[in-house]
Amino acid sequence: MPVPAPFLDLTLDVVTLTEQLVNIESVSHAEEAIADAVDAALQSLPHLTVTRRGNTVVARTDLGRDERVVIAGHLDTVPINDNLPARRDGDILHGLGTCDMKGGDAVMLKLAADVTEPNRDITFIFYEAEEVDSVYNGLRLLAESDPELMTADFAILMEPSNAAVEAGCQGTMRVDVRTTGERSHSARSWRGVNAIHKAAPILARLNDFVARQPVIDGLTYHEGLNATGIRGGVAGNVIPDECVVEVNFRFAPDRDEANAEAFVRDFFEGFDVTVTDMAAGALPGLDRPAATAFVEAVGGQVAPKFGWTDVARFTALGVPAVNFGPGDPMFAHKQDEHVPMEHITRCEQQLKEWLA
Amino acid sequence: MPVPAPFLDLTLDVVTLTEQLVNIESVSHAEEAIADAVDAALQSLPHLTVTRRGNTVVARTDLGRDERVVIAGHLDTVPINDNLPARRDGDILHGLGTCDMKGGDAVMLKLAADVTEPNRDITFIFYEAEEVDSVYNGLRLLAESDPELMTADFAILMEPSNAAVEAGCQGTMRVDVRTTGERSHSARSWRGVNAIHKAAPILARLNDFVARQPVIDGLTYHEGLNATGIRGGVAGNVIPDECVVEVNFRFAPDRDEANAEAFVRDFFEGFDVTVTDMAAGALPGLDRPAATAFVEAVGGQVAPKFGWTDVARFTALGVPAVNFGPGDPMFAHKQDEHVPMEHITRCEQQLKEWLA
Repeated sequence: MPVPAPFLDLTLDVVTLTEQLVNIESVSHAEEAIADAVDAALQSLPHLTVTRRGNTVVARTDLGRDERVVIAGHLDTVPINDNLPARRDGDILHGLGTCDMKGGDAVMLKLAADVTEPNRDITFIFYEAEEVDSVYNGLRLLAESDPELMTADFAILMEPSNAAVEAGCQGTMRVDVRTTGERSHSARSWRGVNAIHKAAPILARLNDFVARQPVIDGLTYHEGLNATGIRGGVAGNVIPDECVVEVNFRFAPDRDEANAEAFVRDFFEGFDVTVTDMAAGALPGLDRPAATAFVEAVGGQVAPKFGWTDVARFTALGVPAVNFGPGDPMFAHKQDEHVPMEHITRCEQQLKEWLA
Repeated sequence: MPVPAPFLDLTLDVVTLTEQLVNIESVSHAEEAIADAVDAALQSLPHLTVTRRGNTVVARTDLGRDERVVIAGHLDTVPINDNLPARRDGDILHGLGTCDMKGGDAVMLKLAADVTEPNRDITFIFYEAEEVDSVYNGLRLLAESDPELMTADFAILMEPSNAAVEAGCQGTMRVDVRTTGERSHSARSWRGVNAIHKAAPILARLNDFVARQPVIDGLTYHEGLNATGIRGGVAGNVIPDECVVEVNFRFAPDRDEANAEAFVRDFFEGFDVTVTDMAAGALPGLDRPAATAFVEAVGGQVAPKFGWTDVARFTALGVPAVNFGPGDPMFAHKQDEHVPMEHITRCEQQLKEWLA
C-alpha cells in the first residue's frame, strides 16, 4: 500500500502553511512527497485545472480574463544542514527552505485556495530541481515539454527578494582559465616549468578588474569577475604542470551570452579559456505595461536583481517577469536560513489585493 | 604454520639478486617479507652479527679494523604502478624498485656474502619506510634506539646516483602561504573579499625568485623556491575566504634550518606563513679523509646531490656520508622505473675493490 502523501491544510494561515511545507523534506531530486502533497491540495480546488509533469505541478484558472499571470516557485531545497524541522522564534520562522522558498510556495497555495475568481487568469507553477544543474530544472523542462503552460502576459517568480520587487537578473558565466607547464622533481626545479607560477598574471588581471555598473530601466546593475576556485599541484616534491583558475563572471542584462564570452576571452587573452557554464540574464522589462502595473500595485519600489534566477527563462519566452517573494536572499543556503513572518503575510496580502 | 620468507640466494649474480628483491613486494609499511628474507640470508653468514629492529636489519663485521664504514639502503618502495614483476630488456632491468633502490640493496648483499675479511669493518643497514613520512623512517628510528649501530668513520648511502658519487644533499622545507578574505555570494561579490585574488603577489614574487648557486667543496649547488600546490574555493557561486599556496624551498647545505626559515619568511613578508616540513641538508664533507679516499677509489668524479636524502641523518650524527648507488634518480618513482645492469655490477665491483 503506498504511503499517503503528507496532507496540506489550505485553510491554515500562510505562516503555518509555510511550516508544513518546510517540514516535508524536499532536497533536490527527492521532491516526490512535497509534489504529491501540493498536487493533492490543488486537486481539491474545483476552480483549478491541475497538470503534473514529474515532480512539477501546474494549476490554472480558465476564466477567459483579458490577461494571464504566471506565479512560480520551486519546491526543492539545498541539502539539509541540521536545520529541520521549522522553528518559530518571535516573528521569525527558522529552518531549511523557509526563505528559499517555501514561504513563497505557501503564499501561492493560499492564493490558489482563496482567490477563486481572480481579475486575471492565473497559472501557478510549483517546480522541481531549481537548486541543482539546470538540466534537471523543472521550469526548463516544462518550457520544453509544455511551453503553452508558461504562456502569459506577465510572470512573478517568488524567489526571496525581501517582499519587494527585484526586476530582471544578471547573467552568469563560468570559465576555467588554465596554464600548463612541465613536471620535474622539485629538487631540480629548473628542469621543469611551474604552471602555478604562470597563473600570476591571471590573478593580477582579476585584481585590476573594474566593475561596470550600467543603469537599465532606471536600475543600477553591478557586474563582477571573480576567481571562485583555484587548483594545481601533483605532489609536494613535483613541479606542477597544470593550474586551473575557476572564474565566475556575473554580467548585467544588457550583455548577451556572446558579448559576455567575448569580454572574458579578451580579458584573459593569452590564456587557455574554457566555458563551463553560461546563463544569460534578463532585462528588467519595466517598460512593459503588465510589469509597470504590478510594481505600482505593490508599492512602486523596485530594485535590480543581481543573482541569476529563473526569471530569465520567462524572458527568453518573451514573458516579462520579476522576482517578488518573502525572505532576504542573503540567508538562502545558509545553516541559519530564516524568514520574517511579516514578509510572508505581506506578500500574500499584496498579491491578493492585486488579483482581487 | 607461518609462511616461510622468500629465499634469497646470495651466490647468484648481483643482477639476478636484484630481480629477486624486486619481486618481493615491499611498499612502505609492508616490508616484513623482504626484511625476513634479508634477515635470514644475513643470519646464514657466520662473519656477521645481525640485529633486527622492526623491519630494519643491521649486520656488522667486528674485525677490529682501524676504520668502520656504514653502507645503507632502504628496503621499501613507493606504491605499485603496474610495474611488477621485474623484466629484463637487453641491458636494462625494469620494474618498481629496480632503481630506487633494490639494485643498491643487492650490491650490499653481495658485499656481505663475498667480502668476508674486509680491510675496514662494515655495518650494513637495510631499513624500512624511507618513502613515507619521516616519523616512520627506519634509519631515523635506529638513530634514536641504537645510535651506536650507526657510528662510523664514513657512510655510503646507496641511493640512485648513476653509479657515481653525489656528495652532501640540499635541505628541503615546506610552507603554506595563506591569504584570507570574506565570503559573499558571487552575484554580490563586492560585499566580500576574494582570498584567491589576494594570492597574486605570492605568485608574482615566486616568478621573481633568483636561485642562489653556491659553490661548496668545489660542488655547485642550486636552490629552488616553488609552489607545488595551490588551493582555494568554496563553491562556484561563493567568493572564497581562503587560499593556500604550498611552497617547497630546496636550499643549499650552507644554510641551516633557521637560516632557511628566515629567508622564506622574509621572502613572503606580509603573508601568513606556516612551516609544515623541514629537513636540513648535508654538507658534502669532501674535506674529510675517509670521504676523499673513497672518492679517489671509485674514480675521483663527484657531483652535488640536489635532492634530500638520508645522508643528512649521518651528517647530523657527525658521520661524513655520500650517495653512491646504481640507477638514474630521474627514473625513481616513475611508472617506467629501470636501472642499467652495468650500474649495478660497476657499483659492486668498485666497492669490492675498495673494501678488499
